[in-house]
Amino acid sequence: MMAVFPLLTVNGDRLNRSLYQLAEIGKLPNGGVSRVAFTTEDLLARQLVQSWMVEAGMVVFIDAAGNIIGRYAGQYEGAPALATGSHIDTVPVAGRYDGCLGVLAGIEMVRVLNENKIQLRHPLEVIVFTDEERSVIGSKAMAGEIKEGPDYYARLDGTPIQPCLEKIGGHWSKIRSAKRYRSDIAAFVELHVEQGGVLEHLGIPIGVVDGIVGQYRFAVTVVGRMNHAGTTPMHLRKDALVAAAHIVLAVNRIAVETPGDQVATVGYFTISPNATNTVPGKVDLRIDLRDLSQEHLEYLLSLLKKELDAIAAATQTEITLRQTLHILPTLAAEPIKTVIREVCERLDLPYTHLPSRAGHDAQEIGRFTDMGMIFVPSRNGISHSEDEYTSPEECTQGANVLLQTFLELDKIYAV
Amino acid sequence: MMAVFPLLTVNGDRLNRSLYQLAEIGKLPNGGVSRVAFTTEDLLARQLVQSWMVEAGMVVFIDAAGNIIGRYAGQYEGAPALATGSHIDTVPVAGRYDGCLGVLAGIEMVRVLNENKIQLRHPLEVIVFTDEERSVIGSKAMAGEIKEGPDYYARLDGTPIQPCLEKIGGHWSKIRSAKRYRSDIAAFVELHVEQGGVLEHLGIPIGVVDGIVGQYRFAVTVVGRMNHAGTTPMHLRKDALVAAAHIVLAVNRIAVETPGDQVATVGYFTISPNATNTVPGKVDLRIDLRDLSQEHLEYLLSLLKKELDAIAAATQTEITLRQTLHILPTLAAEPIKTVIREVCERLDLPYTHLPSRAGHDAQEIGRFTDMGMIFVPSRNGISHSEDEYTSPEECTQGANVLLQTFLELDKIYAV
Repeated sequence: MMAVFPLLTVNGDRLNRSLYQLAEIGKLPNGGVSRVAFTTEDLLARQLVQSWMVEAGMVVFIDAAGNIIGRYAGQYEGAPALATGSHIDTVPVAGRYDGCLGVLAGIEMVRVLNENKIQLRHPLEVIVFTDEERSVIGSKAMAGEIKEGPDYYARLDGTPIQPCLEKIGGHWSKIRSAKRYRSDIAAFVELHVEQGGVLEHLGIPIGVVDGIVGQYRFAVTVVGRMNHAGTTPMHLRKDALVAAAHIVLAVNRIAVETPGDQVATVGYFTISPNATNTVPGKVDLRIDLRDLSQEHLEYLLSLLKKELDAIAAATQTEITLRQTLHILPTLAAEPIKTVIREVCERLDLPYTHLPSRAGHDAQEIGRFTDMGMIFVPSRNGISHSEDEYTSPEECTQGANVLLQTFLELDKIYAV
Repeated sequence: MMAVFPLLTVNGDRLNRSLYQLAEIGKLPNGGVSRVAFTTEDLLARQLVQSWMVEAGMVVFIDAAGNIIGRYAGQYEGAPALATGSHIDTVPVAGRYDGCLGVLAGIEMVRVLNENKIQLRHPLEVIVFTDEERSVIGSKAMAGEIKEGPDYYARLDGTPIQPCLEKIGGHWSKIRSAKRYRSDIAAFVELHVEQGGVLEHLGIPIGVVDGIVGQYRFAVTVVGRMNHAGTTPMHLRKDALVAAAHIVLAVNRIAVETPGDQVATVGYFTISPNATNTVPGKVDLRIDLRDLSQEHLEYLLSLLKKELDAIAAATQTEITLRQTLHILPTLAAEPIKTVIREVCERLDLPYTHLPSRAGHDAQEIGRFTDMGMIFVPSRNGISHSEDEYTSPEECTQGANVLLQTFLELDKIYAV
């Protein structure tokens, strides 16, 4: 299994220098980054990354969704591309790894190929997807999944999407032209920080992602009867908070006790009127449910509905459930998972399989072509925070797995 | 048991006309009243009530806490007074009965005595207590229970208490002079709407109050660990909302399952950061616990503490409990309860015993002298709302019980 020739490796110092350099744009006091899509910081970061792409020997294209596509020519220019990439926009308070590692490891991979004068059989693309953190408009457009009108993509402050796309070289009226097909991209592999604690918990440097979970979200409203907390005896109450507490525990119980790898969360929860001396009359809460299997998600939903009916009856409250998000799971392609596993063995890097329970651009790209993801550990499982951290060594290990994976995929996929 | 002579009765029409007339001051569009203490509306209402007192043959005193004391002379002016009363200030959105019924029934009682040229052995006082709805400063001052500095009594908008007291003829520097003793007031009986649904539920017009519950309040903080709701597996979570849901159900269970008549409520509940895709890191909630027995309150508290310890251990969260309110119960005097019961039997009005689970001026007055309360039904148990309603007939019935009670108390208490 071990290679007899020295393996091609990335320049880890250069990769980590790029990570730090990119993090200077939108830098926050405590080591984090704020670089929301379409802001000046995002625009500056896009320019820097494009110049690095050109420097590394790529030709840069911008599609109608503003996606940056850096293309490194292959021996067979008519062949479908192999692609990697991620995003460089961030949530308002973020770390320096989420998204950026995938983009910069892709660029570093091309730098190494270019300086070693290696050309793959396939064209190789490094893609920076537009606004992954909020609308996912970049990868959705590439997957032909823009099903909503422009209003849906307006920013939180009300700014329409078109001036945003204009700023980055795209145009809403042509957004459908960003759509690509399996004949354009044969395989897409994204390197990303895990954003969870599984790898760190197991002490394993590489995660082979089995797929990106589907995500169901629900808005639940519980209506009881507001009453004076002093003068209303227990048996005359219809306490919406008591009913909602039963729901929180039912959601948790379903996720913990049902065999499987699902997660379920109540993260949003507000009560009304929220006064110490008033029996709560109403609770609004949101449920987030994620799993790799759509069938399993439907099963979990059926369990949840039964629980809600029982709770409504027992607490004499009215409970309504409305689905607000319905994202189907995307499975990683078996050939890509096999290659990543083999590469880890060759590099002597322990690995484990796990699902991605957060959304990624790869989830959209996986709707039209073979997709895979490589995870590296997140310290304390923390992400979307200035405390996000992955060590330079772990970043380098991930980039080396990415590089070797593409060298293998280039052999497997037809030109 | 039936009286052989016709019983003295109040003029129900006049009483209910007074209720409507008083409700014109601070009237709200949907039949309610807004007459917060120390506002122009409160001042106007105080003037109207004083003029009614004078008209009914009383002499009016204002003490240093701004309490209005209408005194109807007795045959033995050196004897301790018998007193009734309540308040005419309201919460910001209120009905027309809470407090006002007790004041106006007292005045109506004196009108009837005066027009029938009846003088009791004891002086009879009708008292309007200052700001029952927020600071309870009037009855606390009369009971010598002002233990806090003036800052404690500042209004919500920051207005100091002294200019407020000045407006109504009181003065902070002399507030201790408002203190009275058992030798001043031998017995105090307050007529009030129930503000709960017990009487209506049972179809009974008169409640004989056993006492006013003690009230313990607690601020509880639950600290877990904020995390990504997608990427954090169930077994690695420290979900503050799950722990808090257990607390809500434990509080409810303790109140429902422990033998006794206690009520317990979680009415305030906020979670942080309150985002759909984030495992909640922190919950702040408040617990309100009421019962007629201090010993029982302490027992319930011990049960609660045990539950919190078990929940903290099971959910790997930190739970802290801090007491924020500690009001001791006040029991009604047995002789007064006996008189009210006998009066109900004589008037052929069904009655039941019940605790008052809301605070009242009688709670403070009961700290230094014999206290009793008479309740009449609240439609749907609603109070502190424009929907508060007690029928004219029920108001009249309550006032007749009040009148007959004082005629009896006048015989029982020494002059």
